[in-house]
Amino acid sequence: MSNYTFSEKGVCAPKGFQANGIYCGIRKNHTKKDLAMIFSTTPCQAAAMYTQNKVCGAPITVTRHHLENGIAQAVIVNSGIANTCNADGVEKATAMCQLTGSALGISPYDVIVASTGVIGQPLPLEPIESTLPALVESLSCEGGESAAQAIMTTDVIKKECSVSFDINGKTVTIGAMAKGSGMIQPNMATMLCFVTSDAAISCEMLTAALHEAVADSFNMVSIDGDTSTNDMVSVMANGQAENAEITQKGEEYALFANALKALLIEMAKKIAGDGEGATKLLACTVEGAPTIPLAKKIAKSVINSSLVKTAVFGADANWGRILCAIGYTEGDFSADCIDVHISSPAGRIQVCVDSFGVPFSEEEAKKILLEKEISIEISMKQGEAAATAWGCDLTYDYVKINGDYRT
Amino acid sequence: MSNYTFSEKGVCAPKGFQANGIYCGIRKNHTKKDLAMIFSTTPCQAAAMYTQNKVCGAPITVTRHHLENGIAQAVIVNSGIANTCNADGVEKATAMCQLTGSALGISPYDVIVASTGVIGQPLPLEPIESTLPALVESLSCEGGESAAQAIMTTDVIKKECSVSFDINGKTVTIGAMAKGSGMIQPNMATMLCFVTSDAAISCEMLTAALHEAVADSFNMVSIDGDTSTNDMVSVMANGQAENAEITQKGEEYALFANALKALLIEMAKKIAGDGEGATKLLACTVEGAPTIPLAKKIAKSVINSSLVKTAVFGADANWGRILCAIGYTEGDFSADCIDVHISSPAGRIQVCVDSFGVPFSEEEAKKILLEKEISIEISMKQGEAAATAWGCDLTYDYVKINGDYRT
Repeated sequence: MSNYTFSEKGVCAPKGFQANGIYCGIRKNHTKKDLAMIFSTTPCQAAAMYTQNKVCGAPITVTRHHLENGIAQAVIVNSGIANTCNADGVEKATAMCQLTGSALGISPYDVIVASTGVIGQPLPLEPIESTLPALVESLSCEGGESAAQAIMTTDVIKKECSVSFDINGKTVTIGAMAKGSGMIQPNMATMLCFVTSDAAISCEMLTAALHEAVADSFNMVSIDGDTSTNDMVSVMANGQAENAEITQKGEEYALFANALKALLIEMAKKIAGDGEGATKLLACTVEGAPTIPLAKKIAKSVINSSLVKTAVFGADANWGRILCAIGYTEGDFSADCIDVHISSPAGRIQVCVDSFGVPFSEEEAKKILLEKEISIEISMKQGEAAATAWGCDLTYDYVKINGDYRT
Repeated sequence: MSNYTFSEKGVCAPKGFQANGIYCGIRKNHTKKDLAMIFSTTPCQAAAMYTQNKVCGAPITVTRHHLENGIAQAVIVNSGIANTCNADGVEKATAMCQLTGSALGISPYDVIVASTGVIGQPLPLEPIESTLPALVESLSCEGGESAAQAIMTTDVIKKECSVSFDINGKTVTIGAMAKGSGMIQPNMATMLCFVTSDAAISCEMLTAALHEAVADSFNMVSIDGDTSTNDMVSVMANGQAENAEITQKGEEYALFANALKALLIEMAKKIAGDGEGATKLLACTVEGAPTIPLAKKIAKSVINSSLVKTAVFGADANWGRILCAIGYTEGDFSADCIDVHISSPAGRIQVCVDSFGVPFSEEEAKKILLEKEISIEISMKQGEAAATAWGCDLTYDYVKINGDYRT
């Protein structure tokens, strides 16, 4: 990983990508941008992954259709309304692509479309139609930050990042912007992530790398257990880095895939730490599990526990709740030999050995748990598999945000 | 069901049962009772069901062993400490049974033991030992309420109920007391339910009836998705109603099993409505599902959704969150033809038809959702199976209670 250079720049970090965000009028609040576009100056190999929810947003249906040929050149996204559970949803998502294609002079089938916001409210097309020419006019390779702002909903911080690395003497960059308070989360706070790259890579290899990366990043984030209807991660690679095209697994593929995974893990942590109402980023690492799927399940079970989350919010080292959440994970494992440590920049303490409590300083535990980034380290001592999941604490503000979001 | 008579009396409603609760000193708060006993004047056929959590409380290990022969005569329960994840847990739970057996003059193997409270703190035996003689002395057929109070933790209301019915001219009664803010819930708020009956019924039939009843009652309650380490439901039947012993499935078995199920559904609703921090009881009924397991899964998915729960708290008819929670339920079903109604004593409105929103009065919806008991009625229109799950809203007080419970 020593050859990977990270930067705060997002989707415009790779060569040949332009972006911007604008207020078009879907939201009532004029000070909040609600329409974003990403454009590559040349066509891209493209891949995407979508929500597993059976109630699926209309933009996902349309994007899935458009990416059947593995080619895309632009992304159009609105925030404020999810365009989901509307009888005219597919028609409107299709129209968004047509309007975008016309304005950019590309095929509507090369447009990726996404929406995030309230489910079941009709999407007005007029504000999008009337604003698109100005948005296209304003596209620039400095516009990534503005695009990242335009897709935010309850997000408090914008989420951008990029990574550069060398493939046989050519500098390749992957950039990303995301929004959402979790992949598993509010219907109004859909997890969206748009990844750009100047790598030359085949659609098949891009798809493989995306699946590997998402499995260890976004799919390991949980805010509140609610899988959105509109979740989507897309990646577009335009080849402008001029590396020899990656068409099979090997050293170059591994360089790209590892960079993509590292980038998406950074984005996943940004999402977890900005969970609705969150005051702390919570990481749970499980090691010594019998299998990787089980290590992942246990880590997510702990991260998802409302009781663990409220205890972390209250800086209370109530480790019994961690054991409880491990214990109700489905799967074949022993709960008899579990060690647990809790750590943060303020220190590290062991709270349980072989599933029994050990004495520790409550004062020290409190100091550790008052930090902003908390790690729960679980050693199962029955195998070689490990996994990490990320989440956040459960706070009064989560209830506040979601108790009166729509009204 | 017309021949079932319900009463507020609990475990002492059936003939031959005595109970009481007392303060022994496990809790710091002297005004809160922390030790309860139930005693049958004659030995009982007995059955129990336990938590599925792999981290399992020591009292469960001991009770499971004691009920191998299907016979019990007394229950001893403490609140305040769960006696779980302690190296000496089994030893202390065994000692509780020995002390109880000696004080009552019965075999320690005929004692059911349970504990609820903080995980991982050592259980002091001395307060139990020194108080047991006074507790035994105070047992009476009026002591059911006091016993129900002694097992409460974060419960706000005590939970007791009984049902009487006729089997071939003999009046049979089943009584119950419970505690907990859900079966799936805080480690400190373990769901415990103790059922008594004067029915004459074999251990095998008692076990079958208990499994049937729990499947449609406690297993359909969810407060916060956390399955405790100490959950337990036990039933003891002493035969003092003098009905002909029920030894096989048939009309008499059905009478008993339906009464037990109706009683446990009442107890389950009491637990759901008293969920930690709850202000509303939430029922979700699913009909027209392809199979009963799927109907149950969908109902529980909706009841478990933090977003549905916060919306109900905020009296916000954000029905998209209900569709979202249906959609992410695992299983083979269509999400294309779902109708949803929301109802309460204040009225009933339809919010979605064939998975698309329909216009409704927000004012009327608000009025409905401001009531204390809310029903979400889901019609899947793809089969004959139905199920109901119960839960509660997610509130600031849930976060408050669990953010600083232990400290």
